[in-house]
Amino acid sequence: LSQRVSRFGTTVFSEFSALAQKHGAVNLGQGFPDFDGPDAVKEAAQRAIREGVNQYAMSSGARDLRVAIAEHAARFYGQTVDPDTMVTVTSGATEAILDVLLGLVDPGDEVVAFEPFYDSYDANITLVGATARWVPLRPPDAAHAQWWFDWDELRAAFGPRTRLLILNTPHNPTGKVFTREELERIGALCAEHDVKVLSDEVYEHITFAPARHVRPATVPSLAERTVTVSSGGKTFSLTGWKVGWVIAPPPLRDAIQRAHQFVTFATASPFQAAMAAALRLPDAYFAELAATYLSRRERLLAGLREAGLPAYTPDGSYFILADIRGFGFPDDVAFCRHLVSEVGVAAIPPSVFYGPEHRHLGHGLARFAFCKTDAVLDEAVLRLRAKL
Amino acid sequence: LSQRVSRFGTTVFSEFSALAQKHGAVNLGQGFPDFDGPDAVKEAAQRAIREGVNQYAMSSGARDLRVAIAEHAARFYGQTVDPDTMVTVTSGATEAILDVLLGLVDPGDEVVAFEPFYDSYDANITLVGATARWVPLRPPDAAHAQWWFDWDELRAAFGPRTRLLILNTPHNPTGKVFTREELERIGALCAEHDVKVLSDEVYEHITFAPARHVRPATVPSLAERTVTVSSGGKTFSLTGWKVGWVIAPPPLRDAIQRAHQFVTFATASPFQAAMAAALRLPDAYFAELAATYLSRRERLLAGLREAGLPAYTPDGSYFILADIRGFGFPDDVAFCRHLVSEVGVAAIPPSVFYGPEHRHLGHGLARFAFCKTDAVLDEAVLRLRAKL
Ligand SMILES: CSCCC(=O)C(=O)O
Ligand SMILES: CSCCC(=O)C(=O)O
Repeated sequence: LSQRVSRFGTTVFSEFSALAQKHGAVNLGQGFPDFDGPDAVKEAAQRAIREGVNQYAMSSGARDLRVAIAEHAARFYGQTVDPDTMVTVTSGATEAILDVLLGLVDPGDEVVAFEPFYDSYDANITLVGATARWVPLRPPDAAHAQWWFDWDELRAAFGPRTRLLILNTPHNPTGKVFTREELERIGALCAEHDVKVLSDEVYEHITFAPARHVRPATVPSLAERTVTVSSGGKTFSLTGWKVGWVIAPPPLRDAIQRAHQFVTFATASPFQAAMAAALRLPDAYFAELAATYLSRRERLLAGLREAGLPAYTPDGSYFILADIRGFGFPDDVAFCRHLVSEVGVAAIPPSVFYGPEHRHLGHGLARFAFCKTDAVLDEAVLRLRAKL
Repeated sequence: LSQRVSRFGTTVFSEFSALAQKHGAVNLGQGFPDFDGPDAVKEAAQRAIREGVNQYAMSSGARDLRVAIAEHAARFYGQTVDPDTMVTVTSGATEAILDVLLGLVDPGDEVVAFEPFYDSYDANITLVGATARWVPLRPPDAAHAQWWFDWDELRAAFGPRTRLLILNTPHNPTGKVFTREELERIGALCAEHDVKVLSDEVYEHITFAPARHVRPATVPSLAERTVTVSSGGKTFSLTGWKVGWVIAPPPLRDAIQRAHQFVTFATASPFQAAMAAALRLPDAYFAELAATYLSRRERLLAGLREAGLPAYTPDGSYFILADIRGFGFPDDVAFCRHLVSEVGVAAIPPSVFYGPEHRHLGHGLARFAFCKTDAVLDEAVLRLRAKL
């Protein structure tokens, strides 16, 4: 066992998916849809296999997918992307995040990110020998309609060794969608400290009006310093295909590609062909995805509240955080263990998404995924109302 | 750019595949078949997509594939593998190798491996902050029917900081198949120094009688210390699917799985289902694969020799090393650049597979892949005979 992995346990997603199975619980834990994406996309993958797109893709990605990624960025964000010098295709966003850290961050550097964080950020920062500086997001209150952060706390996290800021918008698990104003101020701060930005946008198409996804790389102060990471898993409800990508200015993309070629070398060719087709689906597909998730959000929010669980309304992503402080459990892990074994509903305890200093903030929360069919959401609510 | 990637250029495979395309050359460089694997396996993947195997697999791999990997190990090598505690499925062998290094090797440790080496070994050793100690394989000569190494050189490479030995059998690019006797002696050396072994066996089913693949993990002195890495790409002629795996004793597999969950988390689900079917193909499939490659080997060996290129006969893998010292080029890179642009045949210059100390050994070699249809091999030979 190397020292670097000795700190790691099993991911909370694997742990609670296994518990859900063991207890026959409705699984609102790990964020995977219980329905598949468009038939046209699944057919495109089958066609690619049938027609012989089965050998190594280029390491940076099949050119047609890189072109489709550039077209998609232009269509939705007006972002100009050169498919040949600004894109690398990866085996999911998880690999993309590691490639960015390997390519841009040295041992001893510091990385700033918000809490709660997606767990691989913390692990990947450890893997590359860097140190994390966490800044907590605070829940909505009388003065804030959405999750917010203290600018002084963010500013204080920057120092001479800061190399990278990790953004995640829409944010998992709070559902916060960063506004243009926030991004502009963050950009000014990063410019002042000459810090690069990794922007994880895998929920980019799951936002709820009036919130709108703003791509950080389209904010002037961020454009030249931002690496955009996204993937097809959530947008096309095909999380098992593991096709992600990085969009970055050529010098940053070059560093990331150097890492990528020795992490996985290339990504499954037939799914690259299919993802190119997916990214070219008409606007109506993307609008309907968001509309369907809005209705699922409303359904689960209403159900949680009926079950007596106060819940924060997310502006994006397919997750809801509930406030569990009124239930008398010592912490979120105890609550979630009770939930999965006694109530028959799996949720994720968010304290694992906090560093030691702010872990207590996670102890009062539980995360529920609503990327599930109505019948499954209804069954979860039924169980919560009956047994919580 | 981080310091760790600043040493890396573009992989030689990407470079020469691009040159081959630019010059319209016959590509015997990068090792990908120009034909696809069995229709039954391609159909299994299409069925999995159609029938809804499209969400995240378990991080350690779909259970049915882990069972199929264990069955395959028992069938071909009499190896006993527990699918639940000894297997992790990865996004190709490239990811598997990185996961092993991340999981088992600390910064400052030393890793012993043979030259010429598959290029990702060197890069991955750098990525984890370890130091490589290279031991050159020597070409066949009057005293040795195959590539061999000096036991004193191997012994001298071991020291107090040695943590891992990387084996590759069948070996890319020499085609050496390590014998049981060699493996037993290597095992004794590793036991003496308490060193773990990573055994990269992606060409396990491409060997030529009387050579036979011996799985290092079935040699008693190696069993408890060996991590076996393999993949389906070469065995099933589907290099673009990127399904690899690790088999290791539970404590080692645990360390590797901890790394894997934060490198790619999981591997494409539909291809995991199809690989389970592939690994269960009857013995005849595997026998025919080896027989077909034997005939391709003979075809290219004869052709190279007719073209005046002395070539070493490989015992395994789908590569042939030719001796280019008689052609008056300053080195292998100059030779291969001439070959791709003037002769119209792409080959790989092996000097990139050597460390600085022994790089000169690579300057006299060129690597040709024979994972190509007869017509393509014949066209390459025609060009070599006409223009070399
Ligand atoms: C890679 S498994 C985790 C899926 C996910 O994004 C989540 O549940 O947060
Ligand atoms: C991962 S690209 C290289 C393919 C290969 O194994 C080789 O050509 O040696």
